[in-house]
Amino acid sequence: MIIVMQVTATEEQIQSVATRLKALGFRTHISHGDVMTIIGAVGDKHLIETESIESMEGVKQILPIQEPFKMAGREAHPKDTVIRFSNGVTIGGDSGLVVMAGPCSIEEDPQHLFNIADVVKESGAQFLRGGAFKPRTSPYDFQGLEEAGLKQLADARERTGLLVVTEVMDSQEVPLCADYCDVLQIGTRNMQNFKLLKAVGRQDKPVMLKRGMSASVREFLLAAEHILYQGNENVILCERGIRSFDGTFTRNVLDLAIVPVLRKLSHLPVVVDPSHATGHRYLVPPMANAAVFSGAHGLMLEVHYDPDKALSDGAQSLNLKQFGLVMEDLKKISAFHRGLTRHECLLH
Amino acid sequence: MIIVMQVTATEEQIQSVATRLKALGFRTHISHGDVMTIIGAVGDKHLIETESIESMEGVKQILPIQEPFKMAGREAHPKDTVIRFSNGVTIGGDSGLVVMAGPCSIEEDPQHLFNIADVVKESGAQFLRGGAFKPRTSPYDFQGLEEAGLKQLADARERTGLLVVTEVMDSQEVPLCADYCDVLQIGTRNMQNFKLLKAVGRQDKPVMLKRGMSASVREFLLAAEHILYQGNENVILCERGIRSFDGTFTRNVLDLAIVPVLRKLSHLPVVVDPSHATGHRYLVPPMANAAVFSGAHGLMLEVHYDPDKALSDGAQSLNLKQFGLVMEDLKKISAFHRGLTRHECLLH
Amino acid sequence: MIIVMQVTATEEQIQSVATRLKALGFRTHISHGDVMTIIGAVGDKHLIETESIESMEGVKQILPIQEPFKMAGREAHPKDTVIRFSNGVTIGGDSGLVVMAGPCSIEEDPQHLFNIADVVKESGAQFLRGGAFKPRTSPYDFQGLEEAGLKQLADARERTGLLVVTEVMDSQEVPLCADYCDVLQIGTRNMQNFKLLKAVGRQDKPVMLKRGMSASVREFLLAAEHILYQGNENVILCERGIRSFDGTFTRNVLDLAIVPVLRKLSHLPVVVDPSHATGHRYLVPPMANAAVFSGAHGLMLEVHYDPDKALSDGAQSLNLKQFGLVMEDLKKISAFHRGLTRHECLLH
Amino acid sequence: MIIVMQVTATEEQIQSVATRLKALGFRTHISHGDVMTIIGAVGDKHLIETESIESMEGVKQILPIQEPFKMAGREAHPKDTVIRFSNGVTIGGDSGLVVMAGPCSIEEDPQHLFNIADVVKESGAQFLRGGAFKPRTSPYDFQGLEEAGLKQLADARERTGLLVVTEVMDSQEVPLCADYCDVLQIGTRNMQNFKLLKAVGRQDKPVMLKRGMSASVREFLLAAEHILYQGNENVILCERGIRSFDGTFTRNVLDLAIVPVLRKLSHLPVVVDPSHATGHRYLVPPMANAAVFSGAHGLMLEVHYDPDKALSDGAQSLNLKQFGLVMEDLKKISAFHRGLTRHECLLH
Repeated sequence: MIIVMQVTATEEQIQSVATRLKALGFRTHISHGDVMTIIGAVGDKHLIETESIESMEGVKQILPIQEPFKMAGREAHPKDTVIRFSNGVTIGGDSGLVVMAGPCSIEEDPQHLFNIADVVKESGAQFLRGGAFKPRTSPYDFQGLEEAGLKQLADARERTGLLVVTEVMDSQEVPLCADYCDVLQIGTRNMQNFKLLKAVGRQDKPVMLKRGMSASVREFLLAAEHILYQGNENVILCERGIRSFDGTFTRNVLDLAIVPVLRKLSHLPVVVDPSHATGHRYLVPPMANAAVFSGAHGLMLEVHYDPDKALSDGAQSLNLKQFGLVMEDLKKISAFHRGLTRHECLLH
Repeated sequence: MIIVMQVTATEEQIQSVATRLKALGFRTHISHGDVMTIIGAVGDKHLIETESIESMEGVKQILPIQEPFKMAGREAHPKDTVIRFSNGVTIGGDSGLVVMAGPCSIEEDPQHLFNIADVVKESGAQFLRGGAFKPRTSPYDFQGLEEAGLKQLADARERTGLLVVTEVMDSQEVPLCADYCDVLQIGTRNMQNFKLLKAVGRQDKPVMLKRGMSASVREFLLAAEHILYQGNENVILCERGIRSFDGTFTRNVLDLAIVPVLRKLSHLPVVVDPSHATGHRYLVPPMANAAVFSGAHGLMLEVHYDPDKALSDGAQSLNLKQFGLVMEDLKKISAFHRGLTRHECLLH
Repeated sequence: MIIVMQVTATEEQIQSVATRLKALGFRTHISHGDVMTIIGAVGDKHLIETESIESMEGVKQILPIQEPFKMAGREAHPKDTVIRFSNGVTIGGDSGLVVMAGPCSIEEDPQHLFNIADVVKESGAQFLRGGAFKPRTSPYDFQGLEEAGLKQLADARERTGLLVVTEVMDSQEVPLCADYCDVLQIGTRNMQNFKLLKAVGRQDKPVMLKRGMSASVREFLLAAEHILYQGNENVILCERGIRSFDGTFTRNVLDLAIVPVLRKLSHLPVVVDPSHATGHRYLVPPMANAAVFSGAHGLMLEVHYDPDKALSDGAQSLNLKQFGLVMEDLKKISAFHRGLTRHECLLH
Repeated sequence: MIIVMQVTATEEQIQSVATRLKALGFRTHISHGDVMTIIGAVGDKHLIETESIESMEGVKQILPIQEPFKMAGREAHPKDTVIRFSNGVTIGGDSGLVVMAGPCSIEEDPQHLFNIADVVKESGAQFLRGGAFKPRTSPYDFQGLEEAGLKQLADARERTGLLVVTEVMDSQEVPLCADYCDVLQIGTRNMQNFKLLKAVGRQDKPVMLKRGMSASVREFLLAAEHILYQGNENVILCERGIRSFDGTFTRNVLDLAIVPVLRKLSHLPVVVDPSHATGHRYLVPPMANAAVFSGAHGLMLEVHYDPDKALSDGAQSLNLKQFGLVMEDLKKISAFHRGLTRHECLLH
């Protein structure tokens, strides 16, 4: 980082900042300019927050120059992470488009999930998603089937060969969910539930981390860093819409440009969830298609056998017929997209 | 609109609200429910703001049920507006993708603009854009060449046959800009400059209205309504990114889902500007391509013969070679997109 | 809620919606207006989400008319909640201003916390705050002393008689934190960590719930509802700044108007944290003073014996001398504020 | 500014950036650190945007170190601006609290405005506000009385001795409004209408500039800079609430912390408008009182003789009796606030 001293800073103040930085393990380089003095500091920033330096006397401003995400960033890890599952499915890098689909909540009758799973499988998707533990804004809404839901997911996997994804909401539930599922999802409201991030970081199943509702790119990648730091290298980033000033016609704002931004900054695979992002069925197909062209490695789509009867998120779920049509288009679009030449001169 | 009365509202309060509504020209319908009374009111809402009713005694809430944009909305005007230019170019409806490209600011040496215009023309784009009057956050930045810039645009049109677009910033400049240009652009900072909206509404040239930085969908369409209301039916809506909580890696957030939202609510053509939305060159191609799949009728792209020397917005401008490659891809992508079947059941 | 049917809705569609509502336990009332039909529905909304109705054929819009927070809301609980602690301190209703103060993080040397606690006590504040479990955006920042920190808090309570507040970050840590502390704090990043909300709702210690960074008023009160619903009636709401488009000169935007909004909608006590809201020491005194006039029941202030050496949030912490001066002013301001007449006609 | 070169930057790239900076009139200072090279550049930044440097090869990042507002900033103008009116009223610096009050829109019957003006005068306020030109989101809402409204304002000034404030919406109306009024107001939607800013900057009447709905502190002060740059030194800054993710219970979010931020960065007087910021009458008194403690030099309040009949903004207008009570409290609060000691050590 660079410490810019005030024009009026005394030599004593300059030395005092430099001394403090050295004590914190930084190498420093003082540059006396015509107008002001600048201190460069290089180091690990393990135990320091820039704020405490910022409030020292004579300091005008601290300018960070390195991104704080070391393991999630491309600098130390230039090659794309590709996650391989036991059945041969891969996500990330130059693997083809992966689709995760299923109902928002798993419901009591297992046949419902099986019907959906069969269509998901036939359509060519790779993952079945379904919520067993449901984060609900209101305590009066359906809270999920818990372990009974996980069992349905495992049965559907048995039946179809699909990989299964489910949301885990609390550090205590991590082992249970990891037993039943292939990918653990961290929901948007838990993106900075650091105990949960640590818990999923200490087990082996890949983790799909959804972006927090108002998480900056840095915060998003630092949340991934918490998981990577615990030893789990298989993190998938998922853009699912951000909070904005206007929720009248869309539930959130789908920030598609974050896909190429993340792919530039990080080596991790990136998935887009147009269902939660938009909240309206008619917006899902165009946004799913657009996501392919933004460079997404995967899509997460909500599908329900009868959206009008869904216990949650019915308005944004595709029905089985619609989902089939969307998948047909996605296959063509993905193939077309892969056929385009990548122009080196457009990537920077 | 619907007026929901409080549970404790007296009959006198109910009648008083109904009387006020009738005096304002509404037809009313009182519905006494088990729990509360509801008053339906149908009318033009010309001289009334719901707020003044909302503060009457006994009133709990006012619920609007009709969108306030009448002329911009699809209800009264179900067919897509298609704008036709003298040279046969059309925008809107099922016309093909239209591209508007050029430098952010017009610079002193006309040869610079001509070089860009020649490449824009060869690439197959239809419009040359260029700023003669520049809205600048700081008074110390370059403010534009004014009429000399407009003349360059007209010369470039003469030379290439391209249509030309420029931003008009003040009601007094409308006639001048309309003399020289084919489309008048209203910039994001002027989306609610109502005097300017009126002025462009009272002349004949088509108007491209950029969405305000934090304009809701309703405010955007009501700004278009101001123009339509003055008699100018040729309004193009332009999404150019909205303000968000994170401006670190993108200048704004490109809200691509607004494209299908606008196309559902309104009959007006919709253009996307990925250059201003993202602020970074490497993000322009994927977002331009994604915009085609969101359903945009057109794209606005910044191109410069030497972006490092641009007087404004260099970092987001493509150079001439990059622009050529982007256009080649766009032609393929647009043709492919038009070849996909539109599934009726996915449109609602 | 009110279901507004489309102008074109058929009688069959209307009946189908009414039938579905009845099946879900609602009483309904159909009102055929001149222009459109409206269905009123009264009930508990336990198992239903409005979205699934919204996507039924013929439905134009669903208009909710009752706030979803039943236990947190004033309608069912008109009297202010006043929380009483064993040492006689009260918060809420017409109790005087309560101050919670202390360092962001508890550090290794207990003497540091004791020095701060002594000054906090002498100044007339009622609560000592201090973080033992720290939510940190980066895994490389100091993560807290955990139980050793809680022990320090308990020792400081012993020494000074102050009540102690600490943040709990995970459902598994709730019993431990509840053993040592008088108030459990839920941090902004965990406002919708529903498992944690349930866990603190099932124990007896009062809970201070911080508003999520981009939580709406409804989401904030529904998060409180989750706690209340589990049986814990002692919830304190804390405004601590919201995320905005500009973080250059303040860390967040302090939304002081939420104080009178919450006091109107809810019976729960409201506390303001100007330290986290602003992120800069010089902004803490004016915002603390302003918060008193917004109607806050309490303030949470960061104090450190040497802010330049703080392990976290140094830039926003007052030093001991500054804190003493702020408390002197707050006592005068609070007394003056209580002396003003409350004008009934200004409260609605 | 500081240009941070990439770790991999060549000496040629470094020299090329330095050369470009010198050509643009900057003095440069190159500092070769252990890890990377940094170029300091000091100068006026008149014709340059940092973006064009940022996209040069080898450049990692540009770090601005000086605020771009020179005339609005305190560095070059440390003493508070105090604006003096012909009748002896002053605003800014250590002058007492100033109140501007009146209806949102001026209505046809002049007696209405006179009734309000009489009460405003008696209450001890200094300014009468009233809208003659109304910026309206919808073309179907009341657009204002225009010159007839200005005449009413002038008559009310004659009658009461109050100074009058009105909004000017277009550069062409500036001379007319300046003829009739004592302060010209620039509305939130026109904060970046640069032609209008120039026009009010070229005449003599003080200008009250309202903050744009999503304007950053820098953009706000740069808008003021546009006015100052034209020669008009009398600019008043007005915080009126910013756009946020939640408009359910308040119209906007009142950002009171901007008051001490602006007073630190700038010498210009700062006014707060709690009526537009909150949109609800019951929130106006607590927020007006809180604004005094944030350090505001003045308040702008909406008052109407019968808010239920107001042509605009009725829900946020105080009636005459309420306004009288609010003013009584404000006088006490302002006197009390001025009586508090200013502690030097709390100001930084």
